[in-house]
This record gives sequence, structure tokens and C-alpha cells, in this order.
Amino acid sequence: MRLKEIPKMNRSDALSIIANSYHIKWDFKENGLILLDQSLIPYEERYVCCKTVLDVASAIKNMIVRGAPAIGITAAYGMAISILDGTGVEEAAKILSSTRPTAVNLFWAINRCLGVAKSVKSKEELFGRLLDEAFVIHAEDVLCNVRMSEYGADLIPDGGGVITHCNAGALATGGYGTALGVLRSAKKQGKTFTVYVDETRPVLQGARLTVWELKREGFDAVLICDNMAAFLMKQKKISCAVVGADRISVNGDVANKIGTYSLAIVSKFHGVNFYVAAPLSSFDKDALSSDDIPIEERNPDEVRSVRGVCITEKDVKVWNPAFDITPFSMIDAIITEKGIIRQKEEIKIKLGG
Amino acid sequence: MRLKEIPKMNRSDALSIIANSYHIKWDFKENGLILLDQSLIPYEERYVCCKTVLDVASAIKNMIVRGAPAIGITAAYGMAISILDGTGVEEAAKILSSTRPTAVNLFWAINRCLGVAKSVKSKEELFGRLLDEAFVIHAEDVLCNVRMSEYGADLIPDGGGVITHCNAGALATGGYGTALGVLRSAKKQGKTFTVYVDETRPVLQGARLTVWELKREGFDAVLICDNMAAFLMKQKKISCAVVGADRISVNGDVANKIGTYSLAIVSKFHGVNFYVAAPLSSFDKDALSSDDIPIEERNPDEVRSVRGVCITEKDVKVWNPAFDITPFSMIDAIITEKGIIRQKEEIKIKLGG
Repeated sequence: MRLKEIPKMNRSDALSIIANSYHIKWDFKENGLILLDQSLIPYEERYVCCKTVLDVASAIKNMIVRGAPAIGITAAYGMAISILDGTGVEEAAKILSSTRPTAVNLFWAINRCLGVAKSVKSKEELFGRLLDEAFVIHAEDVLCNVRMSEYGADLIPDGGGVITHCNAGALATGGYGTALGVLRSAKKQGKTFTVYVDETRPVLQGARLTVWELKREGFDAVLICDNMAAFLMKQKKISCAVVGADRISVNGDVANKIGTYSLAIVSKFHGVNFYVAAPLSSFDKDALSSDDIPIEERNPDEVRSVRGVCITEKDVKVWNPAFDITPFSMIDAIITEKGIIRQKEEIKIKLGG
Repeated sequence: MRLKEIPKMNRSDALSIIANSYHIKWDFKENGLILLDQSLIPYEERYVCCKTVLDVASAIKNMIVRGAPAIGITAAYGMAISILDGTGVEEAAKILSSTRPTAVNLFWAINRCLGVAKSVKSKEELFGRLLDEAFVIHAEDVLCNVRMSEYGADLIPDGGGVITHCNAGALATGGYGTALGVLRSAKKQGKTFTVYVDETRPVLQGARLTVWELKREGFDAVLICDNMAAFLMKQKKISCAVVGADRISVNGDVANKIGTYSLAIVSKFHGVNFYVAAPLSSFDKDALSSDDIPIEERNPDEVRSVRGVCITEKDVKVWNPAFDITPFSMIDAIITEKGIIRQKEEIKIKLGG
């Protein structure tokens, strides 16, 4: 049975939905946020506990937690923590907003928490209300993922291969995944397929995180280097590509992990369907087109080295954009929790409705 | 002044042309072949001395020497060594042919040496004649590179950026380079440009070898990950792409390092000229189309790890083709030592002439 509208919920509803979340979890004893350190997966499963806003900001900046929806959820918990450590919501909003410029869910979650803070009259209630909001944001994301995945699963053919880039899985979200959520739901429908995983240089989220997630759930996963996708498609091994999104402008242009644009071009070239799975919270109503989306450039050492091992001349110049833009015209469908968007006109309707 | 035809030459002519070759060098004292270990560049400059056919075969197989022209030259020296170590030319031809299946220069050089061996009556002369042939093959390759580079340099615009994939430089050839030779000659013409270097996963020939070569010669080099090329082109930073070739079928399809095909697609998509620089010895007269070119698949651990450091789950399935095929229709020009090929019909003329 399919989930209808995302329901309004209270703390206990939310907590039951996120009970199995292992990578983002509130610790009631310690009054802190437990995060699985994704920079170490799959080499080591280590958890960090964030008890200050700066802890949370640093975890986002250093990619201990990553993936646009997961960043938004983490920031929401950070807003609650700002009451505990005395930073305050206004200052916390500034600090958390400055961590990663591209993921719009970050700003969306922070603004939602600021709205809650404004509506609370009593100072005593503030922490509890903000923490509840974080639980609800977290739980809503899980339900959104499940819902979009049910829509998206219908697009995945039975048999053959699909390809994905970066990690748009449970780790990148509240717990079910966007692109990988779609594949999870397709698998639940009884479909069988091979998932080809782009390693996703420079930070290797595909090789590290997506392979780890897919193997845990018994998928048939095959790792490739990013530059192999085109040749794989030429051999007719791929029926569709499914990726996530870090920010989508209202004209449907998608900012996502560097390499997504390249994958879209080679998909189009081979007649392979190219799908983006993202919650509506990934749409930026203030961005009319991709020109309004800032692209984060990260430390050149991410390219110069792999796991701390240098792979080139130490001082070579590097260009290291973390994201790129895929125009809507190259995307066959954007899969959201309110259904599938194929035409530009549908975007406003989904966002407005 | 431009070099005309590649001249007929004797040992002393050849030795003077290859006198500065630092990565493939005959050691007269040791009667062995000195190779720069390219698997260690740029981390360490270590040389190995090959004194048996098996040494030579292992150096080719393990990519101590790589690049189609350089492999051919190395095999030619290996054929001479077969007289010294008693393997004999027929057996040596078998052993050396089995090292890397895609680079056609390997078979071309081996066959040329077999021809020389057949023509030699006296056993005493055999080693000297085969060694001379190796010197001549080596020197001809250098002259071919210089000649094609003069043709190719005219195609490189002054200002802006060019992009290259893998290493088609001095290290991949007898000593001047094919794609990088073209850029060297363009620089000598006084043109200025930035060279964007694809890191070229999985073996990172771009990050390791091309960056090392370009920096030694004072180029403005910028390293990128392979999946960034498309987004770079979207920003109009690239005027053309120049790559080498491992084998070219007579219809002009080019087998080259994995990722070349992807680069060609994104180049076409952005209206960026896509050039292949290769000596005529890279054409395989027996391959009517790319269907006749075997694509080597290498050890999955090349993808699973970088410099011995694992980057994913140790036992994940991997697809690791070493090369891909770029159809002639996507190539704006093939640059050879006999001029530039733009039309399919010109291929037969150049090969026949």
C-alpha cells in the first residue's frame, strides 16, 4: 500500500519513524547528536558526538555528514543544540549556513527552525520545541524518500543495469535514500538489476559509501571509474541513470555532485534515461535558474591525494568544483515525493501544491 | 624549418637522435635495457635493467613502461635481448606479444624485428642487426613525433585552454610525445595556453606522468578529475582536446585509454575540437573496424585501490577495461607524421603512401 500525503506528526510519531536511523541519531543521555563519520566509511565505523554548534558545523564542513538532505537534518539538530551551548538560534543560523554553500536543504532546514524559534514565547520551551522540529524534519525526510521511491521504482526496468553517481542513499538522507531509495523500492517490487556505481572522484562517495550501502542490502553492485560510464553504455549494459540533487532551481536545473553533468551528457548520447530523485525541499524557490546557485570549490588536496596518499606533484594547480549543473532539458524525470516531474510547468505546481 | 620525410638511418644516426632518451636507454656496458619505472613516477625516479626477454615482458605487463609507441620500442629491444639470453626470436615474439593485447605498435615492432631476423644469414651478426633495428625504431619514433607535432601545433589556438587524457607524452613514446608533442611544438611556436590534465583513473597516468612531464617543461598545467571535463567545457575554458592512440582501425576508430570516448562525447557536445595524435604505426591494417580490436581488461584491484591503499570494499565486483573506442565520426582530426587526416578516405592514402 502506498503512502499518501506526508502526515503531520508529533515527537513520538517522528521518533518511531527514525528509530532505526544509525548515521544521524539524538543521544538523550548525552544531549548531543551522534553522527556516523562518513569520511571513514567503509574503512572504519566510528561515531562522533556533537554537543556544540561548532561541533555540528565542523562535521558538515569536513563531510563527516554529507548529502544535501542529511546536511539539512543535521543542521536542524544543530539549531536545537544552540540553546544548550548558549550560541543562540540567530548566531547558530549564521554559523551553520556558512558550512557548505550549495546544498539548499541546509538553508531550508535552518529557516524552518528559525520560524519555530520565533513562534515560541517561553524560553523554557525553546530547546524542546527545536528538538521536536529536528525529529520531525528528520522523519519527514524518511517518509519523503519512501514516497518518491515508490513513484521512482516504476521507472526502473526489470533486468539489465542501472548506473548511479556519488551517494544518494540512506547515508545522504534521513535514512532511506533518494536515488538509492528508488532502487531499494524497485528491488522490493521484485525487480532484479545490476547497479553500476561511479566511484565519484575526488571524494569517492560512490566507491566508499554507495558500495557499502548496496552490499549491506544484497544488491548486485559493480564499481567502475567515472570515465568508464560512457563505454559501458555503448555496450548497452545500462537502461537508466538515477542520481540525487543538492539544489534544484525553479526552472529544473540540477546542481549535484561533480560528474553528474558528464553522466547526463553520455546518457543522452546513448539514449539512456536520466533520472534525478530529490525531495521538494531540494528546490530553491529563490533560484530562477542555475545562475543563482553558487558552486562550492573545495580544497585542491582532495584531488591531489586519496586517503592522505599523494597521487601527483604536491604543488600542481588543481580545479576542484564540488558540484556541477545539469540542465533540465537533459533530465528525463525528476522524482519527488509528490510524483514525477517531466515538464518544466509541473515544477511550479508541485512546489505550490 | 620542417622535417620532411623520415630519413633512412644507420646506428650512429639513430643513436644521436635518441641520445637524450632518459626513460628507454640501451646500456652498452651491461648489454641490457634501462627503463625508468613509470609505475613509480612522480613519487620516485627508479630505473630497472632488463637483461632477459622475461624481464622485458614483465616490464611491459606491469606498466613499468607504458604508452603504445614506448611499448613497441621496448619490445624491439627485447627482440635483440632474445639473442643474448638464448630465448631466440620466435619464442621472444610469442612472449612479448602476450603482454598487452591492445597496443598495436607492439605487434608492429615485433614483426619488423622478425623480418630483420629472417634477412640475416650469419648468426654472429644477428644480435647486432636486431639491436640496430631497435635503435632505428626508437629514433624513427622520435622523428615521427616531431613531425606530427609540427603539423598538429597549427591546430592549437593561442590563448585559452586545451585538455588531454592519460599520458601521450615523451614517456609514452620514444621521447617527444604524440599529444604532448603537439603541445610542445605549439609552445615552441610561441603560443600560450593552459593544459588541463585529466587524472585518468584508474592508473592515474595523467596525474602522475603528464603533470610531471608538463611541469618539467614549464607548461601551465591544471589537474582535474576525469568527471570534471564536461563542466570545464561548459564554462568555455577549453578550445580543443588532444589525446594519443593505442590502436587505430583502418576506418579511423581509435582505441585509447579508458575515458577517451567519454571525453570525445563531452567535447562534441560543447563544440570543442577533438584531436588524436598518433604515428602511422598505430594503425592496424588488419583491423577493418574497432570490432577487430581486442580491449584489455585489467586487474580489478587497479580500481579498488590507489597506490596500494584500498578505496572501497575489498571484494566489490569491478569492471576495468583499460581502453575504449572512439568512433572516427567523433574525431575532428588524426594528426600523423604524414599530415592531418580529416576524411576517412585519407587514411588509406596515408597508409599506402
